[in-house]
Amino acid sequence: MQRLKEKIKKEGSVQGNNILKVDNFLNHQVDVSFLNEIGREFARRFQDAGISKILTIEASGIAVAAITAQYFKVPVVFAKKTESKNLDQNVYQSEVFSFTKDKTYQIMVSSKYLDKKERILIIDDFLANGRAALGLKEIVEQAGADLVGIGIVIEKGFQPGGKILREAGIRVESLAIIKTMSEGEIVFEE
Amino acid sequence: MQRLKEKIKKEGSVQGNNILKVDNFLNHQVDVSFLNEIGREFARRFQDAGISKILTIEASGIAVAAITAQYFKVPVVFAKKTESKNLDQNVYQSEVFSFTKDKTYQIMVSSKYLDKKERILIIDDFLANGRAALGLKEIVEQAGADLVGIGIVIEKGFQPGGKILREAGIRVESLAIIKTMSEGEIVFEE
Repeated sequence: MQRLKEKIKKEGSVQGNNILKVDNFLNHQVDVSFLNEIGREFARRFQDAGISKILTIEASGIAVAAITAQYFKVPVVFAKKTESKNLDQNVYQSEVFSFTKDKTYQIMVSSKYLDKKERILIIDDFLANGRAALGLKEIVEQAGADLVGIGIVIEKGFQPGGKILREAGIRVESLAIIKTMSEGEIVFEE
Repeated sequence: MQRLKEKIKKEGSVQGNNILKVDNFLNHQVDVSFLNEIGREFARRFQDAGISKILTIEASGIAVAAITAQYFKVPVVFAKKTESKNLDQNVYQSEVFSFTKDKTYQIMVSSKYLDKKERILIIDDFLANGRAALGLKEIVEQAGADLVGIGIVIEKGFQPGGKILREAGIRVESLAIIKTMSEGEIVFEE
């Protein structure tokens, strides 16, 4: 998505070799008008996929998922992060290691909000090591629902998440894939 | 807002005398179409207030803030609850005690995203004891920005948050105010 690549180049900033900050428009301050362009693009790519629900994870996936859901006319469910190991029985849960925060946390979705008849699109802001996406995938599987695909705003192509998910047979649509960003210069995959 | 009251009565569930679960449409599963009605109502109430930015707090405020921001054509900033490696050094911060989770946490907003010329509308899903709203108010004050008002989806009128904020001279617009909900019956203020 050309407009996204331009926006990342213009407003993003690289720290070290693998931290990309786009908190000017995506995950701290949110450019809602631009997120509408992102939502339309996800809808274009998944328009014939019969999506019945969008699944994301708190916190920074929520804005993009909610705006995107308007183009699919489906509800959003966001997985909650929790520190407690044992929640009540009626939840699907999984474990996610966060490299950003250097810790493992539980994620959970109430079983009321994922049904085995459902066709799920996972939406998230970033894909790097793929731990959050794999955790959400596990939750979809626990529900017996159908994981139709994963829509990602920015994929770090030099980290293994995308490869792991695609090799597992999952359709991953990333609107911008970063090939390298060493020495502050962002190079996208074509 | 009549439609909201009906939805709370129909889809909400009361636990004990003061927990109201509306995670069917507001803070776990999100009814994005209904949030658009909420966003339009906030816009109607604050349409002449010259809002330049919406401020909320992760996680459950984000969806309603992002949808609402479309009607104001302004960005959203969400305060972050935990210190993350990717956050800037230059932050406004405050401390919030959560009765739900029985703990105190830090909230922060990068100083880049709140300017002293800004006219801020705080949006959140719930107002009960007012601790989150007071923490956000403190952050707006640290930035030297103007807190124009607070838009709340559901206010628990039997808890002190609304009174504290209004007595501090803040314009609080709550779309539904619950007077009591003892024995499972929800009674709204008129």
